[in-house]
Amino acid sequence: METFFSFLERRTDDCSSLLCVGLDPHIPDLKAPTADSALDFCLNLVKATAPYAAAFKPNAAFFEVFGAEGWKILKQVIEAIHEESNRLGSKIPVILDAKRGDIASTEEAYAKSTFENLGVDCITLSPYLGKDSIEPFIKDREKGVFLLCKTSNPDSGDVQDLMLESGDPLYMHIAKLAQTWNEKNNIGLVVGATHIETMKRVREAAPDLWFLVPDVGTQGGDLEAVLKTGLRKDGSGMLINVSRGISRSENPRKAAVELRDRIVNIQFQMKH
Amino acid sequence: METFFSFLERRTDDCSSLLCVGLDPHIPDLKAPTADSALDFCLNLVKATAPYAAAFKPNAAFFEVFGAEGWKILKQVIEAIHEESNRLGSKIPVILDAKRGDIASTEEAYAKSTFENLGVDCITLSPYLGKDSIEPFIKDREKGVFLLCKTSNPDSGDVQDLMLESGDPLYMHIAKLAQTWNEKNNIGLVVGATHIETMKRVREAAPDLWFLVPDVGTQGGDLEAVLKTGLRKDGSGMLINVSRGISRSENPRKAAVELRDRIVNIQFQMKH
Repeated sequence: METFFSFLERRTDDCSSLLCVGLDPHIPDLKAPTADSALDFCLNLVKATAPYAAAFKPNAAFFEVFGAEGWKILKQVIEAIHEESNRLGSKIPVILDAKRGDIASTEEAYAKSTFENLGVDCITLSPYLGKDSIEPFIKDREKGVFLLCKTSNPDSGDVQDLMLESGDPLYMHIAKLAQTWNEKNNIGLVVGATHIETMKRVREAAPDLWFLVPDVGTQGGDLEAVLKTGLRKDGSGMLINVSRGISRSENPRKAAVELRDRIVNIQFQMKH
Repeated sequence: METFFSFLERRTDDCSSLLCVGLDPHIPDLKAPTADSALDFCLNLVKATAPYAAAFKPNAAFFEVFGAEGWKILKQVIEAIHEESNRLGSKIPVILDAKRGDIASTEEAYAKSTFENLGVDCITLSPYLGKDSIEPFIKDREKGVFLLCKTSNPDSGDVQDLMLESGDPLYMHIAKLAQTWNEKNNIGLVVGATHIETMKRVREAAPDLWFLVPDVGTQGGDLEAVLKTGLRKDGSGMLINVSRGISRSENPRKAAVELRDRIVNIQFQMKH
């Protein structure tokens, strides 16, 4: 039976890419910072990079900042990704980076907004409220979730690195919980690229889970080390998200191809 | 100098109320579940309860579920609260219940969306990403934050109750961090009403902080016990949020007056 990750794996096979293209219409990147220029920015990126994208990841904040107009263009961007999918004959998953986390009745509204109304396939969530806050998003096995485990920001350790009585830091416990909760093969983990030692431990704790790794381009992290540490034994299981590293390059298409190829090359070296 | 909490305290003095009115246009509550009926639902609630509301708390999810239209009506609801404030001659704070939590550059976009574009005064945030994820929201001391500490949902213990090596459960550590981070008097805590023993410990750890207590009406929790446990030594320092307990009553105005008076009565008993 199709699950979110079997769908993602079909796509990674089709495009032989683990590259996730982040759609973050940052105001400094926009010529005129309006919803229209954000839409242009995203549509150009989608068009240029779709053949090489295992997934697209729009970041909710950079749409929400344009208010009602922002939500309208977010839907248009998602529809454009669906059109590119049709053109390519290979459906590209859309991951909404929203990091939601609330009580179940509220999460049901967010899940309806995300999966039904926007038509995306996957969302990022915070684990702070526990399992019942995740359930509205994982009950349909064709929809997926990436749970925050270890993030890449400088102060991520304030909470995520706290040592538990059990001997694990909190992020390790979250990795183990996610592995337990993943009964329908639709839960993955967000693991930052800036902490290689951490990624190694998380991979040991969650050998089967997909990792979403932001933002290899601009938040530091060496691509080769990240892949060698985080890939599963089957040589897959990671989405390498790049946002500004592609969108701010002179030729986003070329930047996406090069990144895709670098990743494939490292995967190949590891297999042989 | 004015801070978010000095502003809130002026309002609680003006209306002699610690009642926070939750604006959750749940789809089951709406005659015809459209953005228009959600707007009517909220405008009626605001009009009926404004004189007795220390604050209003719209829940982002129940607007977002209507897409672009939802963000439009959210802004209209906030403007209606500002109009009621003008009519009453006492500004009523608006707290956006959104539980955001992301890396700083993303949080800056959320902060702009929340404080500048929507014009709200305060937001709920998740602590999982650490201090730099909170900073974009607290740099202006007139804007405030309620940080998730201990939530009221059944599985809140999955993560929040984890015992740390230090001997504290995680939620206690969050309370202590918030007390430390509160240099500008604009950070409070979300503490659920369903765990009285927990609330007692959090109050001991954070004697000065404001608590936002959801949802006393429908998520259980005895009002008297909650107030006696959670109020600060000065007899204030808690916002008692009620959503469905008011919106689903036959006469929301009457329900708000009664709740306001019950709270005042318990505060009075405690002082004498």
